[in-house]
Formats: sequence, structure tokens, C-alpha cells
Amino acid sequence: MSSRKRRDGASQPFEQVAGNGLLDRRALLGRGIVLAGAMGTGGAAAITGAAAEPLKDDPWSLEMGSATPPLQTPSRFEKNVVRTLSNPNNEFRNSHARTPHHLLHGTVTPNSLHFSINHSGLPDIDPAQHKLVIHGMVKQPLVFTLDTLSRYPLVTRMHFVECSGNSAPMFSNEPLQLTAQALHGLCSNAEWTGVPLSVLLDEAGIDPAAKWVIAEGADSQLLHRSVPVKKAYEDALIAIYQNGERLMPGNGYPMRLLLPGFQGNMNVKFLRRLKAIDQPAMSYFEGRTYSQILPDGKAWRFHFLQEVKSFITHPSFGSRLKEPGIYEISGIAYSGTGRISKVMVSADAGKSWAEAALQGPVHPKAFTRFRMPWRWEGQPVVIQSRAWDEAGNVQPLRAEFVAARGETKKPPNPLGFPNQHYNSITSWGIDASGEIKHVYA
Amino acid sequence: MSSRKRRDGASQPFEQVAGNGLLDRRALLGRGIVLAGAMGTGGAAAITGAAAEPLKDDPWSLEMGSATPPLQTPSRFEKNVVRTLSNPNNEFRNSHARTPHHLLHGTVTPNSLHFSINHSGLPDIDPAQHKLVIHGMVKQPLVFTLDTLSRYPLVTRMHFVECSGNSAPMFSNEPLQLTAQALHGLCSNAEWTGVPLSVLLDEAGIDPAAKWVIAEGADSQLLHRSVPVKKAYEDALIAIYQNGERLMPGNGYPMRLLLPGFQGNMNVKFLRRLKAIDQPAMSYFEGRTYSQILPDGKAWRFHFLQEVKSFITHPSFGSRLKEPGIYEISGIAYSGTGRISKVMVSADAGKSWAEAALQGPVHPKAFTRFRMPWRWEGQPVVIQSRAWDEAGNVQPLRAEFVAARGETKKPPNPLGFPNQHYNSITSWGIDASGEIKHVYA
Repeated sequence: MSSRKRRDGASQPFEQVAGNGLLDRRALLGRGIVLAGAMGTGGAAAITGAAAEPLKDDPWSLEMGSATPPLQTPSRFEKNVVRTLSNPNNEFRNSHARTPHHLLHGTVTPNSLHFSINHSGLPDIDPAQHKLVIHGMVKQPLVFTLDTLSRYPLVTRMHFVECSGNSAPMFSNEPLQLTAQALHGLCSNAEWTGVPLSVLLDEAGIDPAAKWVIAEGADSQLLHRSVPVKKAYEDALIAIYQNGERLMPGNGYPMRLLLPGFQGNMNVKFLRRLKAIDQPAMSYFEGRTYSQILPDGKAWRFHFLQEVKSFITHPSFGSRLKEPGIYEISGIAYSGTGRISKVMVSADAGKSWAEAALQGPVHPKAFTRFRMPWRWEGQPVVIQSRAWDEAGNVQPLRAEFVAARGETKKPPNPLGFPNQHYNSITSWGIDASGEIKHVYA
Repeated sequence: MSSRKRRDGASQPFEQVAGNGLLDRRALLGRGIVLAGAMGTGGAAAITGAAAEPLKDDPWSLEMGSATPPLQTPSRFEKNVVRTLSNPNNEFRNSHARTPHHLLHGTVTPNSLHFSINHSGLPDIDPAQHKLVIHGMVKQPLVFTLDTLSRYPLVTRMHFVECSGNSAPMFSNEPLQLTAQALHGLCSNAEWTGVPLSVLLDEAGIDPAAKWVIAEGADSQLLHRSVPVKKAYEDALIAIYQNGERLMPGNGYPMRLLLPGFQGNMNVKFLRRLKAIDQPAMSYFEGRTYSQILPDGKAWRFHFLQEVKSFITHPSFGSRLKEPGIYEISGIAYSGTGRISKVMVSADAGKSWAEAALQGPVHPKAFTRFRMPWRWEGQPVVIQSRAWDEAGNVQPLRAEFVAARGETKKPPNPLGFPNQHYNSITSWGIDASGEIKHVYA
């Protein structure tokens, strides 16, 4: 155990609470308890007599800077902080753009970096012409413009959206050497503002016998999914703002359905029609693509929920630990069921675990940042995180998950590979040189 | 009072709770209580037999859309949603860029639209070369790179930053016909992630006799301000991420001081030095510019706090009410002291007030969105908001404020005009045609 003197003279120990150097999370809460001398060569450098050099002016302190633009963009030194694209030339197939979680921090995903999947490009929708129609089993079909919709009572909430195919590379029976962006980049988190769907269904007078609403987009694929009316009345929104501004074109401009915690493609973008009906539509995206095939050849139909999940973003594959010392292990946890209640972290491949600090306030069905102070002595370690939600659901261990859901090298049936709803553990192996690999543990 | 039938058959009244049609805020909380029939022609249009036209395909539903970019940008139809610039040609003076509050919603300001003020352009800082030095009255001067700083325990918090000169046009003795962007656009709200300054000062071993820290930026003006050590230990951060990504160049890339609730320019950007000292520096920006001149010719020195404030963003100058009906009055409230506890709204120029709904969770020293349901009958009205914070501070009425602080057409002394720390009421006058003007009331 190391210790240090705080400004007030008190001495605080670093208490190791789990194997391979995990430290008590309370070390993060007080003032100045962690670090100091213990940072060693990895931390701040002391300035000695000869080292007045840092007090010289850098070139940018000696000249007028550049002009202020109407829309700010990141520094040219951040040009690697971008979404990675599956279809940069816009060929006639779907396009994935993944969020660089390993390069971000906090919980908000900036709009420029919010993931998107579109099946027929980005439609160029004139918001003054776009209409939302509510029809089917309703007393009075209604049509809304963006203007009329904007007069309804709005709510603002922080929520993640995740493609149910996010983390599909984790089904491989060998760990693929990929960043958190490549593995888990099809989920993002934003502050959404919109109109509760229940208000609009009430206004149209939905028939009590209507149990489903078919939501249809205005993209040229007319992507449509069946949504339980129950969900519409729980917490569904017609979202019209994303982190304060109008939706991004890739995220559904000018309006999208938001079904907090339900698989991404059900959150229909470019929303143009909602049809109340007494049975699901059995559309392409629910009858085939998003019916998860299980190892026994049967399928999960209508498996909407994005279950409790977490992964470590710092440190992770793509970065490197330069030397032993104190680090912060940090990542993202979320659950489609509600609030994250607990995240445990292990540095010894799951032999022992310690509870991480959660950044509050913890929003339901939203990213929660977790943090764990850690002293790395230079030995090989495997770091992992495991999340619980307020309903008591726990992120499954990999062995349990694979037994239930299969792996991709042995496709269980000719209809498809298991590639949906991965929510098990991600493990990063760090060797004595500080190099980080994706491992299964 | 109007009423409507909810889906479950219950009938809910619209209770008017203050003059000119303000409705009980609880109407926003339940499901489907507001609107419906009462929306009248302003709301959704009923689809009758002949009106199948909305079910036709729009052109964008008939063609492949455009390519997905690495960094998303807004739709071309949103090109008016930009910051307004005071110095677009980057002449040799300061540059203001204002946030378009009247076009945004929710509480997060997207990074592209976060306000900025820079006095000598945007420095092009190489983050690998930039250093932060802590020196002066400390046991051990220290130097940090962005890499070493990133290993310290991070915290993530939602906070506003506001220029103390924000709302300066409100000092005019005639109401200027300007948008909320032009009046109040020098404040924004973001999720900041960074290292608590207290941790770094502890590590350097700050002398108990040091009462101030001089924070200096690496811009070519070397903007520097004196910060009380007490504030540094309360809640100051060295921020390195803004809404999840690295800071914008206009907001201090690669690191800035964040002093939640203190006037903007003290949150020194491009931070390169922190010098502990036993007295303030009396720098240009504290000895002159930001010492507020009072009507009696005396000055407020070290008036750091951005006090409790609110303004209505929807509806506001720059938009127009097209017809009588139900609307939502909505705006932003914040206080440098802590959490917003209450916002009152008036539609009759302050004769009567009703309590607005606050969007939770309410963060301390951060934007809080308030909302008030309103039925406008087409008569002339004046709408206003007034905020309280958890410490009991209240936003002053305009008459009180002007008596204490003066107006600009009668400069009280030759040293300057009163133009700092306006936090009084903003009033929007709406005439019978729905036109909105900025008025004093």
C-alpha cells in the first residue's frame, strides 16, 4: 500500500480491493486521495532547476490564430476521431458508421460521431414537405407536419440507441483484434427531445383492440417495423431534436421514432406513417433479419430488448500502456431495461472483482460512465467489466453466453449466423510490454 | 376550460392557472392530457376522404440517398442554424460566436454551436507539444502533458459557461429587436470531462498561504485571470473533453480551466500555466474589462458569479404564432450558484405568474429546460420567465435591476458603459397578428 499526504496533512492509503491492483473506488471521490508520488514516472514531471524549458513560448503563442467559423469543427490534430464506414462509396447496399468509443469520454456522443445504419443512403428530406400520418385502427386519422408536431408538449431525455447487430464480431470463436469502435461502435447516446407518442395516439383515438403500430420510414427502402402499443404508451417519443439541434440526416431527420432500450432499427427514422393494427406486419426486418437464430435452429422472434451490457473503453485495444503506474480503467454501461445499478471490474480475468464508481446522475436506458482506479505493476493482466441493472439483470459471462447463443465458425443452421444481441463480457489482455489485445477469458 | 377524452375514457380539464391562458404544468406530466380537439387548426389535420394525398410517396422515398460521411453534419435545410459571428474576416480584434438558442431545444449545446469568444484568433495547438505547468507557491513545480493528465481520475459533469458580457444589449434603454441568439447567445451548456484541479494542486503541494492561482492561456494574447484557491478546491476542473470528444479549438483545445458558474473568461482556455500566489494578478481582464462600473461611478471588482437567470426561447423574436391555439412556452434557466429550483412564467407582463415544469434531472450550474402549456386566444400578450435557484436567489425584475445597474444611453462615467452580468427578465410581446417583439415590461 502506498500513501500520501493531502494538503490538510492527512494521510490516505491506496487500498487494493481486488487482484492485480484494483483500488477502492472511494479513492476517486475524495479530494486528492489518489496519485501524487504514486504516479511515479507516468504522472506529472517535476520541474528542476535546469528544466525551465516548459516556460518558453510555443509557436502558437506568438502569432494571431485563425478565424472563428459559424459551425465549429474539431482540431486538425483529431482527424482520427471519426466514424468508420462500411460503405464509403455508397454502393447499393446498407451503410454502417461506427462511433469511436475508444477515443471518446463522458457519456454524450457528439452528433457528428453518432453511429448510423442506413439501408438505402441518406434521404434528402425537405422538412417543410415531410408529413407524419397516423392511420389504421384509430377513430380519426391524422396528419402532422414538423411545425404542428413542434407545438405539442416536448420532453427531453438522455437515451442510448443500439443496433441489435452491435458487437457481432464477438460471436467469432477466436477473439478478433479490433478496437471498441469496431466491436461496439453501433451504439451511441444522446439527449433526445420530442413528443410522447402516447399523446398522438390518444389524439387519433387508437382502438383498444389495436395491439401493434407499424412504423414506416420515408427512406426509399420504406423500412418498417411493428411496435407493441404497450411500448408506445410506456416511453416512446417522436424525436425531433438530438443533443439540442435538429436530428442528423443519418439519424432520421426530420423526425424518428425513439423506443428507449429497444433494438435500433425499430426506432424508425424519417418516420412518415404509424398504422395501428391488431397484429404485427411480419415485415422483412422482423420476419428474417432480426429474428435471432439460436444454436438449436429455432429463432427468437420479437426479441426487442437491448439487454444489460458494458465494455471498457480506456485502456483498450488501439492504445498502449507506456509504463507501470496508476491508471483509470473506464468504460460505458447501459441497459434497455432501466438504470445501471452496479458495474464490477476485474484485472485478473474474472478471478476477483471490485465495484466501479458510477458517474451520476444515472439516467435510465442511457450510457453510464464507470471508473476504477488501478495500479499496474507491469505484470500481464486481463481487464473486464460486468454490469447490473436496477431490475437485477446481470451481463452474462462469456461461457454462459456462448453456450446459450453459439459462435460464428459453426453456423447452427443454413438460415444465418448468430450475430444479434451480444451483451456478454469484453476482455482486454495487457502484456508486460503494455500492449493490449482482445482476448476471451 | 376545454376538456378531452383520454384513451381510457377519462376526461381531463385544462385548468388555467394564470392570466392570458397559462395552463397547469401538470397537464404536461400525465399521458395525453393536453391538446387533442383543443389543438384546433393549429394541431394535426384530420384526414378525410379526399385527403389521401399525404399517403403518396415523396421524391426522396423513390431514390437511393446520399453517402454516409465519417463526420455527420446537419441537413442542408438547417443552414440557418449556425453561430453568428462578430468578426468573420478575423480582423485583429476579438471574435464572438453566438449560440442560436431560438432554434435549439433540450439542454445540451452541440459542440458545433457552442459559443466562443477569442481575443487573438484560434491557436493551432499541437496537443503532443502542449504543456501545463503548475508553479509559484508550491512545494514542487510540475509539468503535465495531455497524456499524463489523461491518466488522472476524471469526472464528467454538465455545466454552462457564460460570458459575463452576455445579454449586454439588454442594458439599452430601448428594447432592441434581436433574437435570443443575439441577446443571450454568449452562453452554452455541455458535458465536460476533466481532472479536478484540487488533485493537481495537492500533488504540487500548494502553500497554504497561496490564496490565488493565476491561470494563463497559450493563445497569443496569453489571456490570464486570477482564480481564488477556494474555487479551485470547490469544483474546478481541467477539462479535456466536451460532449464526449476533445475540446473544440474555439473552446480551449487541448485543455481549459472550467470554473462552474464563474464568468466565462476566467475559464481560461488553451491552459498552459497555473501559478499559485498570495494576491491576485490584477491583469487587464480583471483590472479593467471585467470590473463592472456601477451607476455611482464605483466598480465591482472580482464579481465572478453568473447569477440566476432565465429566458424564453420558444416562442421568441424571430418566429411568429400563425394562429390561436395551444402552444408550449419553453426556455432555459441556470444559476452559477447551484440548481434551479423554480421557474415562474407570466403571459400578462408580470401581473400573474404560474410555475413551469422543469425537465429533470436538474444539474447544478447547468441549463435547465422549463416548459409551460399555454392556450393563446389571439389577444396581445407579453410572456416572461423568472427563475429561482436552490440557494433562494431570484432573478431580479427589470425595474429593480436597472435602478441598481443603470442603462447604456446614459453612461454613468467616462470609463465605460454598464454591460456586464445582466441577469434580469426578458419579455416577448406578441400582438394580435402573432408577431413577436422584444419589449420591456
